[in-house]
Amino acid sequence: MPAMRTETDTMGDVSVPADRYWGAQTERSFENFRIGTEHLPVPLIRALGTQKKAAALSNQSLGRLESRLADAIVLAADEVINGDLLDHFPLVIWQTGSGTQSNMNTNEVIANRANEILGSPLGSKSPVHPNDHVNMGQSSNDSFPTAMSIAAAEQVTHHLLPALNHLYQALSEKSATFKDIVKIGRTHTQDAVPITLGQEFSGYMRQVELAMERLRDVLPRVMELAQGGTAVGTGLNAAPGFADLFVTTVSDLTGLPFSSAANKFEAIAAHDALVELSGVLNVIATSSMKIANDIRFLASGPRSGLGELILPANEPGSSIMPGKVNPTQCEAVTQVCAQVMGNHVTVTIAGSTGHFELNAFKPVIIYNVLQSIRLLGDALRSFTDNCVVGIEANEGRIRELMAQSLMLVTALNPHIGYDKAAKIAKKAYADNSSLKEAALALNLLTEDQFDDWVRPEDMVGE
Amino acid sequence: MPAMRTETDTMGDVSVPADRYWGAQTERSFENFRIGTEHLPVPLIRALGTQKKAAALSNQSLGRLESRLADAIVLAADEVINGDLLDHFPLVIWQTGSGTQSNMNTNEVIANRANEILGSPLGSKSPVHPNDHVNMGQSSNDSFPTAMSIAAAEQVTHHLLPALNHLYQALSEKSATFKDIVKIGRTHTQDAVPITLGQEFSGYMRQVELAMERLRDVLPRVMELAQGGTAVGTGLNAAPGFADLFVTTVSDLTGLPFSSAANKFEAIAAHDALVELSGVLNVIATSSMKIANDIRFLASGPRSGLGELILPANEPGSSIMPGKVNPTQCEAVTQVCAQVMGNHVTVTIAGSTGHFELNAFKPVIIYNVLQSIRLLGDALRSFTDNCVVGIEANEGRIRELMAQSLMLVTALNPHIGYDKAAKIAKKAYADNSSLKEAALALNLLTEDQFDDWVRPEDMVGE
Amino acid sequence: MPAMRTETDTMGDVSVPADRYWGAQTERSFENFRIGTEHLPVPLIRALGTQKKAAALSNQSLGRLESRLADAIVLAADEVINGDLLDHFPLVIWQTGSGTQSNMNTNEVIANRANEILGSPLGSKSPVHPNDHVNMGQSSNDSFPTAMSIAAAEQVTHHLLPALNHLYQALSEKSATFKDIVKIGRTHTQDAVPITLGQEFSGYMRQVELAMERLRDVLPRVMELAQGGTAVGTGLNAAPGFADLFVTTVSDLTGLPFSSAANKFEAIAAHDALVELSGVLNVIATSSMKIANDIRFLASGPRSGLGELILPANEPGSSIMPGKVNPTQCEAVTQVCAQVMGNHVTVTIAGSTGHFELNAFKPVIIYNVLQSIRLLGDALRSFTDNCVVGIEANEGRIRELMAQSLMLVTALNPHIGYDKAAKIAKKAYADNSSLKEAALALNLLTEDQFDDWVRPEDMVGE
Amino acid sequence: MPAMRTETDTMGDVSVPADRYWGAQTERSFENFRIGTEHLPVPLIRALGTQKKAAALSNQSLGRLESRLADAIVLAADEVINGDLLDHFPLVIWQTGSGTQSNMNTNEVIANRANEILGSPLGSKSPVHPNDHVNMGQSSNDSFPTAMSIAAAEQVTHHLLPALNHLYQALSEKSATFKDIVKIGRTHTQDAVPITLGQEFSGYMRQVELAMERLRDVLPRVMELAQGGTAVGTGLNAAPGFADLFVTTVSDLTGLPFSSAANKFEAIAAHDALVELSGVLNVIATSSMKIANDIRFLASGPRSGLGELILPANEPGSSIMPGKVNPTQCEAVTQVCAQVMGNHVTVTIAGSTGHFELNAFKPVIIYNVLQSIRLLGDALRSFTDNCVVGIEANEGRIRELMAQSLMLVTALNPHIGYDKAAKIAKKAYADNSSLKEAALALNLLTEDQFDDWVRPEDMVGE
Repeated sequence: MPAMRTETDTMGDVSVPADRYWGAQTERSFENFRIGTEHLPVPLIRALGTQKKAAALSNQSLGRLESRLADAIVLAADEVINGDLLDHFPLVIWQTGSGTQSNMNTNEVIANRANEILGSPLGSKSPVHPNDHVNMGQSSNDSFPTAMSIAAAEQVTHHLLPALNHLYQALSEKSATFKDIVKIGRTHTQDAVPITLGQEFSGYMRQVELAMERLRDVLPRVMELAQGGTAVGTGLNAAPGFADLFVTTVSDLTGLPFSSAANKFEAIAAHDALVELSGVLNVIATSSMKIANDIRFLASGPRSGLGELILPANEPGSSIMPGKVNPTQCEAVTQVCAQVMGNHVTVTIAGSTGHFELNAFKPVIIYNVLQSIRLLGDALRSFTDNCVVGIEANEGRIRELMAQSLMLVTALNPHIGYDKAAKIAKKAYADNSSLKEAALALNLLTEDQFDDWVRPEDMVGE
Repeated sequence: MPAMRTETDTMGDVSVPADRYWGAQTERSFENFRIGTEHLPVPLIRALGTQKKAAALSNQSLGRLESRLADAIVLAADEVINGDLLDHFPLVIWQTGSGTQSNMNTNEVIANRANEILGSPLGSKSPVHPNDHVNMGQSSNDSFPTAMSIAAAEQVTHHLLPALNHLYQALSEKSATFKDIVKIGRTHTQDAVPITLGQEFSGYMRQVELAMERLRDVLPRVMELAQGGTAVGTGLNAAPGFADLFVTTVSDLTGLPFSSAANKFEAIAAHDALVELSGVLNVIATSSMKIANDIRFLASGPRSGLGELILPANEPGSSIMPGKVNPTQCEAVTQVCAQVMGNHVTVTIAGSTGHFELNAFKPVIIYNVLQSIRLLGDALRSFTDNCVVGIEANEGRIRELMAQSLMLVTALNPHIGYDKAAKIAKKAYADNSSLKEAALALNLLTEDQFDDWVRPEDMVGE
Repeated sequence: MPAMRTETDTMGDVSVPADRYWGAQTERSFENFRIGTEHLPVPLIRALGTQKKAAALSNQSLGRLESRLADAIVLAADEVINGDLLDHFPLVIWQTGSGTQSNMNTNEVIANRANEILGSPLGSKSPVHPNDHVNMGQSSNDSFPTAMSIAAAEQVTHHLLPALNHLYQALSEKSATFKDIVKIGRTHTQDAVPITLGQEFSGYMRQVELAMERLRDVLPRVMELAQGGTAVGTGLNAAPGFADLFVTTVSDLTGLPFSSAANKFEAIAAHDALVELSGVLNVIATSSMKIANDIRFLASGPRSGLGELILPANEPGSSIMPGKVNPTQCEAVTQVCAQVMGNHVTVTIAGSTGHFELNAFKPVIIYNVLQSIRLLGDALRSFTDNCVVGIEANEGRIRELMAQSLMLVTALNPHIGYDKAAKIAKKAYADNSSLKEAALALNLLTEDQFDDWVRPEDMVGE
Repeated sequence: MPAMRTETDTMGDVSVPADRYWGAQTERSFENFRIGTEHLPVPLIRALGTQKKAAALSNQSLGRLESRLADAIVLAADEVINGDLLDHFPLVIWQTGSGTQSNMNTNEVIANRANEILGSPLGSKSPVHPNDHVNMGQSSNDSFPTAMSIAAAEQVTHHLLPALNHLYQALSEKSATFKDIVKIGRTHTQDAVPITLGQEFSGYMRQVELAMERLRDVLPRVMELAQGGTAVGTGLNAAPGFADLFVTTVSDLTGLPFSSAANKFEAIAAHDALVELSGVLNVIATSSMKIANDIRFLASGPRSGLGELILPANEPGSSIMPGKVNPTQCEAVTQVCAQVMGNHVTVTIAGSTGHFELNAFKPVIIYNVLQSIRLLGDALRSFTDNCVVGIEANEGRIRELMAQSLMLVTALNPHIGYDKAAKIAKKAYADNSSLKEAALALNLLTEDQFDDWVRPEDMVGE
């Protein structure tokens, strides 16, 4: 039985563990919402620290908050930002839809810690009061979405974009290495005309390049902060100038170019920008699914598949089939992609169902957005390091598959027309012969012409 | 400029085309909702005819509706059921969420047609009144969902289940034909232990068999009719006994075992049963996607893919690559599956957002459910007739791929243990040798033992 | 029995209706894919006309296609563009995943029509050959996605963006009209602090403004054309310079700034840009769902709901409840939104499952994207014209609801602190008294102070 | 730096923490998949324990596994089942798609622990070998899905069904308590005819009752076990009779009626039954969303909303608005519902993309299914205990809203017809008068008739 202390809120007294900084409202939520195990994501907790710090500094600058209190709040907020107080954030995602209880959790932890710094006992709410000082000029309704924006922007910038760039570099290196390997192209999963393995990888590169471009395009909208709107967007009880000063402060603290939302009503009542960001993450999942699928199919075998690529063998693949190696990194990526696509539906539904002045699905929205960012970043980095960089081309196999393709006949179109070229391909298929044999048997061109016109290495463009 | 006549409703006069049976409310909706091109699905219009016919017969039986009117209504309703009056249903899906306007469209068309039969002019609303007689004891709020249930049940029973059974029979025949063809199994897209081609197809059979079982399990809930609840479920203005008599009548008319919803409030305010049905269609899409994908990959080639199956060549596959043949039926199926999965999300969102006594997403729900049923039924029948029945095994290729697999080594586990078996597989892979060569080189067993233990045909079970 | 003529392709003879321009491949597809009723969307057929016209002009400029043929092809293509030949495009979406059959449909129709213009019989394939001339230097694999891009860009530009702007203007007018109407704000669906009705509408305006911004941001990626990549992206059989000349020509023909895809492999093997566009449509659906939901709840009543807004009464709302009027335009919008969200999942799944050099879900992707654009554009225009412009504020009701709110107490926070303010609100609630009565009863401030501090009109910001 | 020991697998030596039971393959996976924080769900780890125990007992019974080893394996497996060894399962969901690495994790932990029990050092793989003994006659490909089935069935049975029943009982009590409270019904969010509050709650009851029925219908398919199919469904290396004995053993151990999958190929290559179960969870989310939405709207206010229900005040609702109370339990439920709907899309995508003999999305499928079960169960229980049981009817408010409704006019339809009844309602609305005043002013009936016919308490059915 742990030692307890008494905390109070407007509803009365509550017992909380003596060694925790949280207060009455956090404890109520902790007890009333015993749902699942999904705690607030760490980047969001840290962003709440940043939000409180910036608010305190802004209120101090505006002369609303005395420096003694502001300084203590900033010290406490820094501990939140540094992740030193994670044990004091016990709440799960499945709470009130405004995140009020986690905003109050932050207010209570910072107030108690600040009071401790100032020599006042936990639970005293004095000299630092969680609502009147830590939450000064703020509402959960603008603070929590502000923290959502900060967390999302930081994770995109510092986690996902670097992982994408890392993958891009690895693909780029492979594309260069493979640039002269002419192989069979496949459309409809069927044999088609030649392509180089380098070109194939350049398609993946382009998908990843565009992924980064898409993220950069959407970030400015994600980075519009609701702060200053307070409860419903009107800014009631926030000091004049607070919104602008806050955004400058946060930009300084994070090094990222946040802006103040052009319309605070929209920024509180809707989370369209996060739905949009989730849509971009969904595109990245789409792209990654394609790339990972291609690579595992091209590496299928080792003996009875396509076998054009050889992937690093990282771990035994089967508990019953000795010596089996599987494209496990591809499988982790595709599973992550399926998760991100589902998360996007969650975010869409949650984003569409706000009512009046507040969207009350804030925690579930940011939980899914941050999970998607985290998983894509982690999985693509793991995929890069444990798979892509080690991919080798099975050149003998590639040559063999390419040489026997009937679709090389396409090169004859400009010379003899589509219909005659088709005759050759169909005859070769029916006879199980080579294209050249069929072409000559049909007397549609000479051997020299065939050799001149059907050259895979000339069929792959410049 | 077509001839027009005047129709009236409680809001006043409206001009409608003289050669159309619809009335004022239909015309208002037609003009106010110029959205898209998606008209009410034909099976739903016919089901509305059935619903009106059963209501008239029931009201007649209960002595509420005089026979002269009932007879005329039944005659007119029969024309709706037979599809003779489709040109008189101009409304789109994107209308009021209760389907009131399409219920009124039906009431108006039947009233006008019945009055015509009875020698009264169009627009007279006498002797047959669209609300007082055709809609007697009914509300759109119970009539429209009743028609939704009827249409869904009929389409599942008469369209989708037969198509599934048709596919099941074709797969069954293939499975029997292919029962002795031992081939390489593949897990993680990689070579694994042997399986017969017949076994592979039996897996597909089972998926289709379960699809039918799932549909049959969900049908009873789909077939609970809201009729008798009228506006909010209380049955206001419906005659005592109407609900039960109605359901008996509809069951007689359709030959399907409908029941009266145990709770009419639920049946009007929610469409959980259609969300559930959509979930089963979603499973069928999942299964079909798997089957179609497998078949196109197994048939990939013809020269440079897996090439184990040969599919019927139904049409030229490429406008540029002569002689190309593609797994186009598989592609139609997989596209339909993607559609059904998306439709399911639409149905889910729509089903979750009813408020109070009415779910006001009725048209979009039934549109998607009926589209999914139609597309799955059509696509699987097309797939069966134009692809499955013509599939041939490429036995030479199958034998070749199977013989060279390293995973046959698994048969040695019970004899020499997993670790030693792995040594053999890894050596064979490294040396590009056969398993037997590697096994003997490692001195782990004798040639006789190898020949005795590694027999693909013994590795596929009974 | 209609008159028939014989057409041929590389597979042999086929009978087609004598009065149709399509040829053998179209007919095969028509017969092999009897799936559903969803034909190729009209904007896509027209875009295929544009694509063929631009290709012919480009090939002519490059000296590959003689002018006599090019001129006839252009004439025929113009008829496709103008929508004069829609009856000659009988195929459904559920066909091959490359759209080859619809590309060939276009080639065949244009070839036959061009030959007719040139005095040659239908089916002659001479002097204009569908593959060698109409499809010159093209593959379905680059032509069809090019038409997808053209159709999507045109529909966004000419249909959806104007509809959004139209809604924006109407909301803007309402916001201005309602700017001085102070009303209760609502968060968590519960009473909150005041806001003006104009501010509430400004939030909707901002959502619509951002919708337009999002579309404009994504368009450049949608407008990267695959043309010139031919079958797999290498450009085999396309003339040097074709891709660039083509894109210039299409831009001239359409007046829209298309570009040539930076990487043709990506542009054929993936449709990430359309997945991204669909993601933006999904955001617009999210925003529209919020707006339509708010408006119907604010207009709920007329007597027993919130009743703050009065919507135009467009049609009788109930077949059983006389005099009922419903927010039907809102319901059409929300149903459309549910459809768009589901369509987005379809597009995502389809977009993620391309393999190797080709995404083989092209028809289902463009079908859903174009349906979403069409429905959003139509529904938002209908909503604007039939609902938004006619919205009136029920000022008496608004005043009444605002005056009695307990949340006006928030204005006291800066003066007496959060905890004391809470005491007042709780007492007023418990006693069913006014805030002022409670405040004075608790002796927490004077009547003058209360009157001075609690002024709704001062609580809504500048 | 923790103490380490050496473990080995077929790829060589690996260092693992000395105080952990896991072996080389677990460690490789741990290092190769640093993706996210989502560990294998506890119910799945426990189910893997059950699976290994049942396998050991079955192999022992069949004379394949000597009792000394079987006994030790069973002891170790029991510790897994009891949750004593959770710290020895470090792997995340984002690993190989077969779950091989978690199956091997289980094999390694049990082997090491069993060897410890038998006095042999960790890492010795003797006398108990992780593959040859713990995994005897098994593959990951049948073991992991078997554990998936066990975990899902146990969680549905022991967690979700009881929570649904708990909610059902609470709703049932409320429905009985509220059975005589006549209130206004609402359709399209607008005033409609009367209903009792008890009837409204009975609709929710029915949704929950059907939720339980749906789960019970789908369970038999979920409970078909893949065990005995080994690597690809053929049962290679499993002893004759193993599958049947196993399923009996598991049924005994769990008390649940598992069966052996009718077709093992399907059971390994697809997870249709879990997609179906997820579909049912999706329906439950749909139902729960409706119920929670209704309750928060009906409880909106306290002063300026509908205000018909009063919810328990569990915690302060706002950090800025003193005294505010919000429907937070409803918000937790609706957020969970959005999550479950998104999870369902993930499961659908994952379930549809198996290839050949194996679906390689197993971990992500079971992760989402178990999360959905857990969250629905927890949230509905929390909602029941912290909200539903405390709901009170605001009878004064309910009476007031009901009395003023214009839709009571519907009771006049059978007496004076729809059109005249509409005239009354429209006049009353226009004049802001009562229905009776309007009716008398129009001379459409007498006061006595009105009083006789328009009686709300007679309008709610029996």
